[in-house]
Amino acid sequence: MLKEEIIRQLEEIVGKGSILTKKEDLATYAYDGTTTWAHPPDVVVMPTTAAQVSQILKLANENLIPVTPRGSGTNISGGSVPVRGGIVVCTTRMNRVLEINKANLTATVEPGVVLQDFNNLLAKENLFYPPDPQSFLSCTVGGTVAENSGGPLCIKYGVTKQYVLGLEVVLPDGYVLNIGGSTVKNRTGYDLVPLFTGSEGTLGIITKVTLRLIPKPAARRTIMAIFDDITLASSVVSTILANGIVPAKIEFVDNFVIRRIEEKMKIGLPVDAKTMLLIDADGSVAAVESEAAHILEFLQSGGAEVARLAKDEDEANMYWKARSAGFAAVYGAARTVIAEDVTVPRDKLAEFVKKLEGISRKFGFQIVLIGHAGDGNIHPSVFTNSREKEELDRLQDTLTAIFEAALELGGTLSGEHGIGLEKKRLLSRALDPMAITLMQRIKALFDPNNIMNPDKIWES
Amino acid sequence: MLKEEIIRQLEEIVGKGSILTKKEDLATYAYDGTTTWAHPPDVVVMPTTAAQVSQILKLANENLIPVTPRGSGTNISGGSVPVRGGIVVCTTRMNRVLEINKANLTATVEPGVVLQDFNNLLAKENLFYPPDPQSFLSCTVGGTVAENSGGPLCIKYGVTKQYVLGLEVVLPDGYVLNIGGSTVKNRTGYDLVPLFTGSEGTLGIITKVTLRLIPKPAARRTIMAIFDDITLASSVVSTILANGIVPAKIEFVDNFVIRRIEEKMKIGLPVDAKTMLLIDADGSVAAVESEAAHILEFLQSGGAEVARLAKDEDEANMYWKARSAGFAAVYGAARTVIAEDVTVPRDKLAEFVKKLEGISRKFGFQIVLIGHAGDGNIHPSVFTNSREKEELDRLQDTLTAIFEAALELGGTLSGEHGIGLEKKRLLSRALDPMAITLMQRIKALFDPNNIMNPDKIWES
Repeated sequence: MLKEEIIRQLEEIVGKGSILTKKEDLATYAYDGTTTWAHPPDVVVMPTTAAQVSQILKLANENLIPVTPRGSGTNISGGSVPVRGGIVVCTTRMNRVLEINKANLTATVEPGVVLQDFNNLLAKENLFYPPDPQSFLSCTVGGTVAENSGGPLCIKYGVTKQYVLGLEVVLPDGYVLNIGGSTVKNRTGYDLVPLFTGSEGTLGIITKVTLRLIPKPAARRTIMAIFDDITLASSVVSTILANGIVPAKIEFVDNFVIRRIEEKMKIGLPVDAKTMLLIDADGSVAAVESEAAHILEFLQSGGAEVARLAKDEDEANMYWKARSAGFAAVYGAARTVIAEDVTVPRDKLAEFVKKLEGISRKFGFQIVLIGHAGDGNIHPSVFTNSREKEELDRLQDTLTAIFEAALELGGTLSGEHGIGLEKKRLLSRALDPMAITLMQRIKALFDPNNIMNPDKIWES
Repeated sequence: MLKEEIIRQLEEIVGKGSILTKKEDLATYAYDGTTTWAHPPDVVVMPTTAAQVSQILKLANENLIPVTPRGSGTNISGGSVPVRGGIVVCTTRMNRVLEINKANLTATVEPGVVLQDFNNLLAKENLFYPPDPQSFLSCTVGGTVAENSGGPLCIKYGVTKQYVLGLEVVLPDGYVLNIGGSTVKNRTGYDLVPLFTGSEGTLGIITKVTLRLIPKPAARRTIMAIFDDITLASSVVSTILANGIVPAKIEFVDNFVIRRIEEKMKIGLPVDAKTMLLIDADGSVAAVESEAAHILEFLQSGGAEVARLAKDEDEANMYWKARSAGFAAVYGAARTVIAEDVTVPRDKLAEFVKKLEGISRKFGFQIVLIGHAGDGNIHPSVFTNSREKEELDRLQDTLTAIFEAALELGGTLSGEHGIGLEKKRLLSRALDPMAITLMQRIKALFDPNNIMNPDKIWES
């Protein structure tokens, strides 16, 4: 519990209307998107300026109070759960788009801007910001930077860190630090921007972000293909890339999702097929027509049972809606669905899927596959019941087996969700021990009192 | 001078044939591409394995001997000049391409691989590694990572840091650190890879690099345009980008270079024109034809005096050769040519050029402009004579004025050449003072004895 005096000081900093202390309010901030962990903060503050954030952190630092930064709380590795209580600094009221510079192809925004709102504004200017985590409808830009978020479009366009040009970050001692800038080339000392990008709120609080934008692609075509065999599907993906075509998205789902889509949408999918690929080509009109035609050819000659080019925007939207519906069905199909996030080198995709089948048999859990085939980022969803103690223990072993299988193939512990609370027990299996030591030393250098989002990323 | 015993131990580590100690050999390693600074090392070692590099650094660290890592020495900010003597670790014998993985679109190479050799190998596999510093014929991959090199293609394809997925780095105490991996998405703790990328050899020695590749674009078209006014040219560049077209290159040169090109090549350029743009479109055949046609239209309607689409590969090569010839002419046009490297936000290009004209008048130096118009990275080349003491003093003021003009417009001190020795006196004008403090603390954390490339980036 925080002292009354601290609460009073926080109230002074942000104003009465921007602080929550009632039990029922705090309960809302005990969770993030994982729902696995819950711990209420002692207080939630909703600053509107970097100066307020600075005062909050100074106060916290002097009194050794844990601080958990939070945007919309859509994190799915436990990163925004205030496990030690203390102060949640919620950035959702810092939600101004400060500049959209069409001639320089950059934008500067406050951290609480919702990703979808940002992209809607950009679309009016014919601009585009590619990173597209599944939570785009509600996640904040600040959160995507803190988590270095990815998404389906990242195969062609890269992840968040490839777009962050400049940051304003409040350090744990209250210093308002400016790093990077608004030019795409910048070689001025060590690059501190990518250090904060993906640091999961453990080094400071992001209060301003300058992002590189790209012109909005003029056209898009969507291609759907069904395969009887993941190996075939995976090898067609390699063929497409090897022929110089980088689609905007290459998503895949397995038989379980295909069935759910067909049940819901009745679009005539073969319900016994093992794999569906959904591919988007985007770019100029001429490029897209040509690329889509080539992709279709490769799918057909590569052994697809069905390969269809969506005839118009409506049909394309229908496929993507079907995929989302499939996702939703997955999450409703069991009492608890643990959607994991690992990567393998893209040439190891088929091998990894075979390993997952083995893991499913061995541990007796259904594992449904959804993933970004283009970049080797897979989300194996394990169906379980978190109310059964026996299942939960077995689940931990299952997840460990999944991670080990990915690491054995040269993959990573996380592709886009981060470590947070969820994977810290496994970090030492995934990294060079000295890499962890260096990370911890960097953490201590930036945050000597360990007030910023403590207990995340590694075991304390 | 190093003790005989140290030399003997180094000889034991790398073998007799891989160590240079003669004065005339050491003189070669006193310089890099800048030629402004010269200081011979005490010894040059040419290791062939990371294990050797590890032993060398351990020895240096224990004996507090400065170590300067060096590839081909094409650095143009003084980064590979061994200003404190000591050991030069030259990586050119670590030049194996360890893997080219076409299905995963990655390659793993040793640091001494020459960039052009690497791209020749990739071309055979229809693959492509975009970062293209002007020194590509001789620079090493390790050097481009240490300097986070850019080049003309970076407007579309990004700089080196956007391609480095994994690194093996020998730390100053000899530890062989592995960070990152071979997947394009990786969210496992702090991202240490971009910290080493661009660290100018001050944190450790890179001994292995895993790079992301892209499929080689199937087609390319080159467009040349002449403008009477930089403002017009600059505004057409904005129009092209705003219409959803991102060319592979948008290079510009000024009247001086146009004249030199015309003298040499006789291709009918209007010798009074102020600006020439050279633009490459690349991608699939259909995309390129369409993009090139649009670019040509924008150039014509945007006020170009001349705008020509090269009719074939030969004509395209002729334009690019002409540009290189123009560059060469610039470097031969004065006793000393200082080619600077700054950036401005791309919408500030025309304004910056006007400021440079003022600086040229004020200080009495001819300043020739070459640059990457697409990303706001300009190389103003100042004509001077380094043998004239008076000129050299005035030159420093001129360069300072150039940097200040760029910074005032929201630009940076360096776009792609780095800080090295050349700009360390100005670093504090370009960065938040706390950013420099944090960089120095990171340096101390990785290299407590300050043996790695000392006296670079900031004033000691």
